[in-house]
Amino acid sequence: MAVGGALVGVGVELTTKSASATREGVPQNDVEPFYGIHQGGILTLPQRYTYVTAFDVTTDRRRDVADLLRHWTTVASRLTRGRPAGRLAEHAEGPDSGLDSGEALGLSAARLTINFGFGPTLFAKNGTDRFGLLGRQPYELTELPSFPGDQLIASQCGGDLTIHACADDPQVAFHGVRQLARAAGGVASIRWSNSGFNETAATSGTPRNLLGFKDGTLNPKTASELDRYVWVGYEGPAWMTGGTYLVFRRIRISLEHWDAASLGEQEHVIGRHKTSGAPLGKSSEFDALDLGARDSRGELLIPLDAHVRLTSPEENWGATMLRRSYAYDDGVNGSIDHESANQVPQTFDAGLLFACYQRSPLLAFVAIFEKLARNDALRKFTTHTGSAILAIPPAAARPGEWVGQKLFET
Amino acid sequence: MAVGGALVGVGVELTTKSASATREGVPQNDVEPFYGIHQGGILTLPQRYTYVTAFDVTTDRRRDVADLLRHWTTVASRLTRGRPAGRLAEHAEGPDSGLDSGEALGLSAARLTINFGFGPTLFAKNGTDRFGLLGRQPYELTELPSFPGDQLIASQCGGDLTIHACADDPQVAFHGVRQLARAAGGVASIRWSNSGFNETAATSGTPRNLLGFKDGTLNPKTASELDRYVWVGYEGPAWMTGGTYLVFRRIRISLEHWDAASLGEQEHVIGRHKTSGAPLGKSSEFDALDLGARDSRGELLIPLDAHVRLTSPEENWGATMLRRSYAYDDGVNGSIDHESANQVPQTFDAGLLFACYQRSPLLAFVAIFEKLARNDALRKFTTHTGSAILAIPPAAARPGEWVGQKLFET
Repeated sequence: MAVGGALVGVGVELTTKSASATREGVPQNDVEPFYGIHQGGILTLPQRYTYVTAFDVTTDRRRDVADLLRHWTTVASRLTRGRPAGRLAEHAEGPDSGLDSGEALGLSAARLTINFGFGPTLFAKNGTDRFGLLGRQPYELTELPSFPGDQLIASQCGGDLTIHACADDPQVAFHGVRQLARAAGGVASIRWSNSGFNETAATSGTPRNLLGFKDGTLNPKTASELDRYVWVGYEGPAWMTGGTYLVFRRIRISLEHWDAASLGEQEHVIGRHKTSGAPLGKSSEFDALDLGARDSRGELLIPLDAHVRLTSPEENWGATMLRRSYAYDDGVNGSIDHESANQVPQTFDAGLLFACYQRSPLLAFVAIFEKLARNDALRKFTTHTGSAILAIPPAAARPGEWVGQKLFET
Repeated sequence: MAVGGALVGVGVELTTKSASATREGVPQNDVEPFYGIHQGGILTLPQRYTYVTAFDVTTDRRRDVADLLRHWTTVASRLTRGRPAGRLAEHAEGPDSGLDSGEALGLSAARLTINFGFGPTLFAKNGTDRFGLLGRQPYELTELPSFPGDQLIASQCGGDLTIHACADDPQVAFHGVRQLARAAGGVASIRWSNSGFNETAATSGTPRNLLGFKDGTLNPKTASELDRYVWVGYEGPAWMTGGTYLVFRRIRISLEHWDAASLGEQEHVIGRHKTSGAPLGKSSEFDALDLGARDSRGELLIPLDAHVRLTSPEENWGATMLRRSYAYDDGVNGSIDHESANQVPQTFDAGLLFACYQRSPLLAFVAIFEKLARNDALRKFTTHTGSAILAIPPAAARPGEWVGQKLFET
């Protein structure tokens, strides 16, 4: 399958199915397709940086939301080709002379992908059918249950709309979010925003997260796996066919406590060897999990509460999701005990921007995490502080169409 | 001058003078020298990511601080060669089996540099000569004055020690800070930490900051300029010869307000054209500033309050500093008016991690910023929320020496 345009910023429209279908290993150019069947940033070979930004819709007019999505689609199609959001002429004056903020001038598209998502509150908020969309809300797009151990911060959760931008250059990714946020003025305002990074070597193997372990080894890969586990099919609703659902969790990892655990303890928590990524007792990352294997004393090699066991399809009736997570580091924070005026030590506010895509959140993330939240050995080191579930509709098929059009217009 | 080791992780000690002296354009390898005359990350061709992390010393024993600096030097020399901080053996058990957290396994050195700085409070805090170092405090290492418009957050300012890590891979940079923070246990604890990014194309021209303008055009470059303006010379104290002073400011930019200004307004604020970076009225980035040039109506082409005029050496009796700033984006934040329960809209907490190195902060940053804080047109869009001044001592000359040794031992 040919790549639809070798030059950045020339305006060639890419209509290929997906990035991963058009590229073999190293990118031939750094423009990822925008138009097609599925939105970008899902199958796309993971870029180095991500922004996940949620918006509250501030209008009560359905038409305004539709106009915003149409406009966002146009702007995103430009940005993902490495073009500015709007005119930026040297020496220009006047109200439309700065429609792009300029910090990506001279930079390439850096494999920028932008996808848009719809939260449950876009359909109904406080029991109100805000935009006449309630009848089209998918069964699967329902607020996540409250899990044991959740310490969610309300302002870091939910949102009516999301933008998910990924690129190999953080300035390109941030630039994209900034132009889209600006374009939303009067219709939607930012609720929360998270940024994350991946190690540079993501193209040469499974990247490691801040636990130091490889993350994403068992992702579905083949077209039939993706159709079965990731893409919405006949079950619909029709406007979601070819779409998927994103569950996003901001997971703080207590790095200080994790680092205080010995390597052996860490490997028992995860169920894999740290260096190789092999399941405990095996030697290669992609060796099959043998969940029944025991050591010479009769103990299970992979403990009952090991993360890899509890998340394995074998122990979840085949439930599978496509994980596409990033590390985050938001500096440090601590607190002051006002009674004693004691300073509680600053600790890293760092961890994982966990993102998983699946056809059925109820069968995948919710089912698996109901178990993890109760039993996972890793839960001693993690705290979920942010959460969202989003319907990720299919892509705009071609220029002139827009993301969400079938939801709003048909 | 030959590069002292082409292989990563082999343990070859680099003793070349500085990165910029050993590399021509594109890096020949991705290990930057650690030992030498000057610490890394100052002249080094800017990497893509930075971490600036400040520590409070929690011990009152001088020897503990010296031991920490000796240990930090050893660990940093390993990390900057792409090696783990300590042993990380597969299948290992025991207390020293996880001395490296592992997330940089398999990654290269990514041009990691780590430098260490000493704040004024290392010498005296609340009037106390904590470690018997007060007599060696440089005259130039004095708390910055309070500038008009400062809205500093105390917990984001100051610090006894700093680590400044830069790398082309954010995971490598964070990994470095994490290992060093861990190594500080019981002696120093993190006070604040900031992370920032640079556009990827920094190697191919002056990078743009989040204002969308090129930043760093007029940096000193020649050896004589650097000796005159950046490196501490005969004035001493002796332990600082070959060192420099870092002024760090976390500058929030009101991107929403900036983006609402037209291109023409923005260019008058900065005094340069946005696209080309040329001074107003000129056509090329490196055209000399003509601060007296006027248009046909007799108006100054570069306004009196333009940022480029107020920061120019011509208007500062030659004062010059080496700027090495990064963009930052820490998501969004807003506030709630508790009286009315009105939500104040979320805005980007984004801007500039401004860092400048100079031989004399009093003649350079302080003198220039006293003017800027009162007159700079850009001040309408910026808020300084974090601040620190650090003595950056010279590098450890060779293995066995450690950063700060001359301060503590002689």
